[in-house]
Amino acid sequence: MNRKAVVLLSGGLDSTVCMAVANSEGYELLPISFNYHQRHSRELVAAASVAQHYKIDRHLVIETNMEAIGGSALTDASLAVPTGQIGAVGVPVTYVPARNLIFLSYALGYAEVTGADRVYIGVNALDYSGYPDCRPEFIALFQQLADYSTKAAVEDGRKIIIETPLINLTKKDIVLLGDRLGAPLHLTTSCYQGTDEACGQCDSCLLRLKGFAEAGLPDPILYRTRSD
Amino acid sequence: MNRKAVVLLSGGLDSTVCMAVANSEGYELLPISFNYHQRHSRELVAAASVAQHYKIDRHLVIETNMEAIGGSALTDASLAVPTGQIGAVGVPVTYVPARNLIFLSYALGYAEVTGADRVYIGVNALDYSGYPDCRPEFIALFQQLADYSTKAAVEDGRKIIIETPLINLTKKDIVLLGDRLGAPLHLTTSCYQGTDEACGQCDSCLLRLKGFAEAGLPDPILYRTRSD
Repeated sequence: MNRKAVVLLSGGLDSTVCMAVANSEGYELLPISFNYHQRHSRELVAAASVAQHYKIDRHLVIETNMEAIGGSALTDASLAVPTGQIGAVGVPVTYVPARNLIFLSYALGYAEVTGADRVYIGVNALDYSGYPDCRPEFIALFQQLADYSTKAAVEDGRKIIIETPLINLTKKDIVLLGDRLGAPLHLTTSCYQGTDEACGQCDSCLLRLKGFAEAGLPDPILYRTRSD
Repeated sequence: MNRKAVVLLSGGLDSTVCMAVANSEGYELLPISFNYHQRHSRELVAAASVAQHYKIDRHLVIETNMEAIGGSALTDASLAVPTGQIGAVGVPVTYVPARNLIFLSYALGYAEVTGADRVYIGVNALDYSGYPDCRPEFIALFQQLADYSTKAAVEDGRKIIIETPLINLTKKDIVLLGDRLGAPLHLTTSCYQGTDEACGQCDSCLLRLKGFAEAGLPDPILYRTRSD
């Protein structure tokens, strides 16, 4: 029997490269995505395309009205998505409170039920926008908690390991890694605006374009405008 | 301005006593409940009644298809709810993988957005059914993680404290505490079966009945049968 890995798959560049890493390590892939009433569902379409690319039997989509909590420009239509603010000080308004914690918690439960011994998450501490729940300390503490909170670990000593293969990579490195592993980067979406063509202006587009530029590779997705 | 507390409110005995404790300590109460496609929605009705009893402005109900993860008799209709197994060895099939972790994660995000500095959860390490995520070690590790994962704690040094006022109480003590604080115990539901009248046979009913009996108080809810 193949070993199994749950992969948090948003349909973005990072999580898709994360899928490619788990795939290259021989795991049976169990992607999990979230419809948390983010402003746009385009990334769910991208996630489904990536899952299809890897010929996945079951793509788990968790539905949740996370927008009822509020507080983020990514789920609250009354807050504007900022543009061109990379390097601004502090946690940006696109931060969704406790999002990675919630996502990892579901992934852990799914790993427990399916007998997976890995959870892959494409968090990145370098080229990211300053979200607190992307840092190595956060992941290390979550790992400790996971070892205490599942029946699998407590009764059977079967620990579920959180894998963060991108955590210390620059966006350039992530692009190069994805390219080398044949990740379907053309199917991914990163733009906060969620339009069919990427805006090329938001923090997420700017980071992505910078990464491809530094990697010396063309970004295969469509942009409305480019600032590079 | 009153200090605020998010309270995880299932509509059961323990969470309702937890509401009463938070109320008695003067917090503005922010209850949060989950429609996670548990077999029955009776506990959500009970939670709404308890919230109404405390004249709550906003009762946040998170909707999520947690049953898509599977693996528990409480969400998977193909697994039978066990009866009369208190004291059996190990984690029972009514354990929902990572449930408290998921619930606490949402509650933490909600506390951050609303400016609450407390999250109350009615976990209980003594008279419980052996769920790993009800133990003090789990809560202590979640607290550490919370201190790393929110913008509130990282940027503003505003930590959100997880309060577990019932963790070392017996069911008898919980009944007595609820009675003393005037908690609306008549509005609560505990039965795993979720019928209008409690079954009186499942682990949860047996624990509850034992608690009331030892407290020397009548249980104000209706039972189909009683084993006491």
